[in-house]
Amino acid sequence: MLELDYQARKNIVIVGGVAGGMSCATRLRRLDEHANITVIEKGPFISYANCGIPYALGGIIPRESQLYVQTPDKIHKWFNIDVRTNTELLSIDRTTETVKVRQNEQVESLEYDKLVLALGAAPLVPPIEGVKASHVFHLTTIPDLQHIKAYIATHTVTSAVVIGGAFIGLEAAENLKALGLDVTVVEKSSHVFPLADADMAHPIKKELERNGVKVITDTTVTQITAHQSATGAVHLSNHDPISADLVILATGIRGRTDIPAAAGLQVGKTGLSVNKFMQTSDPDIYAVGDMVETYDRVQDRNVRLALAGPANRQGRLAADHICGREIAYRGNVGASVCKVFDQAIGQVGVSGAQLDLAGVHHECVTVHPAHHAAYYPGAQKLIIRLHFETGTGKLFGAQVTGTESVDKQTDILAVALQAGMTVEDLEHLELAYAPPFGGAKDPVNMAGFVAGNVVRGDVKIVHAADFATGKLRLEDYQVLDVRSPSEFAGGHVAGAVNINLGELRERVGELDKAAKVLVYCFVGYRGYLAHRILTQEGFDVVNLDGGFRSVVEGGFDRNLMVESD
Amino acid sequence: MLELDYQARKNIVIVGGVAGGMSCATRLRRLDEHANITVIEKGPFISYANCGIPYALGGIIPRESQLYVQTPDKIHKWFNIDVRTNTELLSIDRTTETVKVRQNEQVESLEYDKLVLALGAAPLVPPIEGVKASHVFHLTTIPDLQHIKAYIATHTVTSAVVIGGAFIGLEAAENLKALGLDVTVVEKSSHVFPLADADMAHPIKKELERNGVKVITDTTVTQITAHQSATGAVHLSNHDPISADLVILATGIRGRTDIPAAAGLQVGKTGLSVNKFMQTSDPDIYAVGDMVETYDRVQDRNVRLALAGPANRQGRLAADHICGREIAYRGNVGASVCKVFDQAIGQVGVSGAQLDLAGVHHECVTVHPAHHAAYYPGAQKLIIRLHFETGTGKLFGAQVTGTESVDKQTDILAVALQAGMTVEDLEHLELAYAPPFGGAKDPVNMAGFVAGNVVRGDVKIVHAADFATGKLRLEDYQVLDVRSPSEFAGGHVAGAVNINLGELRERVGELDKAAKVLVYCFVGYRGYLAHRILTQEGFDVVNLDGGFRSVVEGGFDRNLMVESD
Repeated sequence: MLELDYQARKNIVIVGGVAGGMSCATRLRRLDEHANITVIEKGPFISYANCGIPYALGGIIPRESQLYVQTPDKIHKWFNIDVRTNTELLSIDRTTETVKVRQNEQVESLEYDKLVLALGAAPLVPPIEGVKASHVFHLTTIPDLQHIKAYIATHTVTSAVVIGGAFIGLEAAENLKALGLDVTVVEKSSHVFPLADADMAHPIKKELERNGVKVITDTTVTQITAHQSATGAVHLSNHDPISADLVILATGIRGRTDIPAAAGLQVGKTGLSVNKFMQTSDPDIYAVGDMVETYDRVQDRNVRLALAGPANRQGRLAADHICGREIAYRGNVGASVCKVFDQAIGQVGVSGAQLDLAGVHHECVTVHPAHHAAYYPGAQKLIIRLHFETGTGKLFGAQVTGTESVDKQTDILAVALQAGMTVEDLEHLELAYAPPFGGAKDPVNMAGFVAGNVVRGDVKIVHAADFATGKLRLEDYQVLDVRSPSEFAGGHVAGAVNINLGELRERVGELDKAAKVLVYCFVGYRGYLAHRILTQEGFDVVNLDGGFRSVVEGGFDRNLMVESD
Repeated sequence: MLELDYQARKNIVIVGGVAGGMSCATRLRRLDEHANITVIEKGPFISYANCGIPYALGGIIPRESQLYVQTPDKIHKWFNIDVRTNTELLSIDRTTETVKVRQNEQVESLEYDKLVLALGAAPLVPPIEGVKASHVFHLTTIPDLQHIKAYIATHTVTSAVVIGGAFIGLEAAENLKALGLDVTVVEKSSHVFPLADADMAHPIKKELERNGVKVITDTTVTQITAHQSATGAVHLSNHDPISADLVILATGIRGRTDIPAAAGLQVGKTGLSVNKFMQTSDPDIYAVGDMVETYDRVQDRNVRLALAGPANRQGRLAADHICGREIAYRGNVGASVCKVFDQAIGQVGVSGAQLDLAGVHHECVTVHPAHHAAYYPGAQKLIIRLHFETGTGKLFGAQVTGTESVDKQTDILAVALQAGMTVEDLEHLELAYAPPFGGAKDPVNMAGFVAGNVVRGDVKIVHAADFATGKLRLEDYQVLDVRSPSEFAGGHVAGAVNINLGELRERVGELDKAAKVLVYCFVGYRGYLAHRILTQEGFDVVNLDGGFRSVVEGGFDRNLMVESD
């Protein structure tokens, strides 16, 4: 049990009344009934569900009030915490241990024994002409939400452009569409959801388009003109202007580090620096949430991470440390999931692009399992990709897309990654199975089997993306399609020979043993069986990772010159 | 890469053509293109989805053919494996390394270099008068399914009794109800789904009843009389007879160990003995699946486990070992999930009853989180219970019930348990969050927080079940309900004092510091806050685990003398 010194009532000031700040404040009260705890919040609301804001715009969450998790009054009654909304931090004076704050033009100094900063992040405002126009909004706070709703109520709004195709941009697009608007997403990189591999995000692009959202990638916005004018539009570097009565900026965020930096606190490359107990360079000042940079366990470096779960956890640990409990933050793995209409995309750890950039030897595999037993009604295809260390199979990251169970598979893989598992550990995982819920060989087991085969050298694979980037050339292979003739007729890689797997043993003589074989089937399994047969017969074979489905779902039709009979 | 000696083609005989047997056969072919592989299957089908059989009875899976995962012809074409259906194992001669088999009255001897036994389990036939009557069936094989369907088609069947309330019994009950029958489940123990704690299974009982299935527990069947007679019924030890045109026996299974035992192979307490490479006491004979006993990682003893996932994995590992790859089976954790109408129950590791029986010091906590952000439409309550070691917090087991996300939470906990995690590790788990998929503090995090508080001694809890068993007595406490007056008026523990949490600090003088306080709220959180306030004020307090909701959902209304104003 904690021993408290009731004589020395601590003054604890927390700046920021959402996620990390409020988790810290309430944890503090639970640990210390007698501390003086004050929470300063710049906005009019505390503890609100800012992840729900896009859905409150689209009406999926019908009432704005549903976003208010706590009120200052309830926090005061339950926790005896003094919450001051509409109160802004002006400066920190570390010598006198005071903060200067302003509420309704009144400036006041508050003394602290311990100060916790949870200032969050500010949306980036790209340096575009017209970006300050009255029809251009962010979508990260409740006031943002109110402003957009008021604007739509008082103006003729039929078209919207969302600038930025990551989490908030895609959620905004879905919800603007729900309002009946003509919506376009513009994204500067080659694909929406740029943190994921391009082919894993391709189904998300298709889902946006299926729902009538236009997607323009590889472009930059050069100018925004007001919609009242005849030319009201978003102007692009390499594309015709797009009509836009409303523009949402979702081009990223930056940690609010200006005031702490002015007070001399150490700032890292991406956010305020903290140790594993969330202390800044001043041990009496803690910082948590979107404004800090924390250790990334997979990348082995500090990163700024804007996720609600880690922010809450950091707030809790800061409170623990203030109360004499040394519980270290264990670092992040970047587990995330995003819904886009009926599709979802989940991710944990790093992507292939990040590993390439870091120069780490790695492999990846892609599988297309059904989300539950294929024979039970409603089975939906998932795509799961694993990134892992060459040789050891240690898990570096995973990506999942599909319509069902994406969150479940992502979380299974997130726990496995945090436990330091290898892909071979995934083969051995015992998961709960019944036909409505999974498979006797569950999706993550299947991914483990395929990756384990690569680690053990039982199969050599190539990726459709390698043909897209030019790393590999189709003409260097004799291409073998081992699907049925009817599957082959429906579409196949240009120049492929079709030998049904069931006939491969008797027709093996039709192949040239001197030439490398690229074998594929629909999802990779029959290709693997053919690979095993041919390898043991002395052929030099590679199997196409994820099969023909990876070509189609990943958007590589052109690169692999898909043709139909 | 594996080096194969192509001169020595192995004769491998596999007995049993479903799950474990067929996984072994196909893995063998992938590893060794040149072995002679023969699969013997007693029944007419191979590789069928026997977990789907109850759903094929109820028509949820419309066509029986959907259960056929593979055909002998396809297995022959793809894998060059000789599959013999309707072929029964008669005996094993270890001296000559031959098995005697019978097909269509033809008896034949097959030589083996390696023999793999995947004989499965036989349903137990309880010694009840009338159990062999023509309207009494098992429901574990496709012929069982066909017999029941034929019987229903040719007889007037309006009522059914299912004897046994575990997995197959409950799935059978749901599917018989789907056929429009009047269904009763009878179970000899105190509750359906007897492997789980009684209160965790209580929502399953309520769901059965909500769907019109009658449930009778604490009873034994004394006689079954044929339904054609005027008294056609299932007769019970302590209950009126129940009319039954059809009876399903789901009273458990036993491993088919008779023939291996006759051949002198070592048999354990619950199934055939195998080492971690799935070798029996004869190193040339392997055994996998429902017939063997394997190491239980939580219980630290051998158990027989009838689950499809482990069976498949064991088959794969036997194949590996036959091909010179020493990959050990890692043991079981008993991860399972079962759908019962719109509810599900999932489990991993051991229950409280099992831990009590083993005399292991343990604690448990119960939480009632929403399956995703409460403010996002469609959030459903889950119940999660963790069992863990006193002092260390090492996870021993978990149970989950609810209508949504039960499989997901069970799998997250299954991976955590297999990784050797403690409840404190669950607090730190980073899980993927977006409002449609989870919470910033995810259900498993919440369970971890509560359990962590217990491990660290920040809260003392008692369980509603302890009042039911008489381990604790309500009259030894001053009972404090910290919910709102309107919640209190809707139902509360008899004799409870109501002080709204928001008023507790000012009204603390109304409580007697000399008497122990039992505090509770709706799910446990406000009770925990009150516990922290009162403990720091010098009270001796316990919080009711899971709050009032655990009393109601667990079926403890009578024990805690719930009354309304």
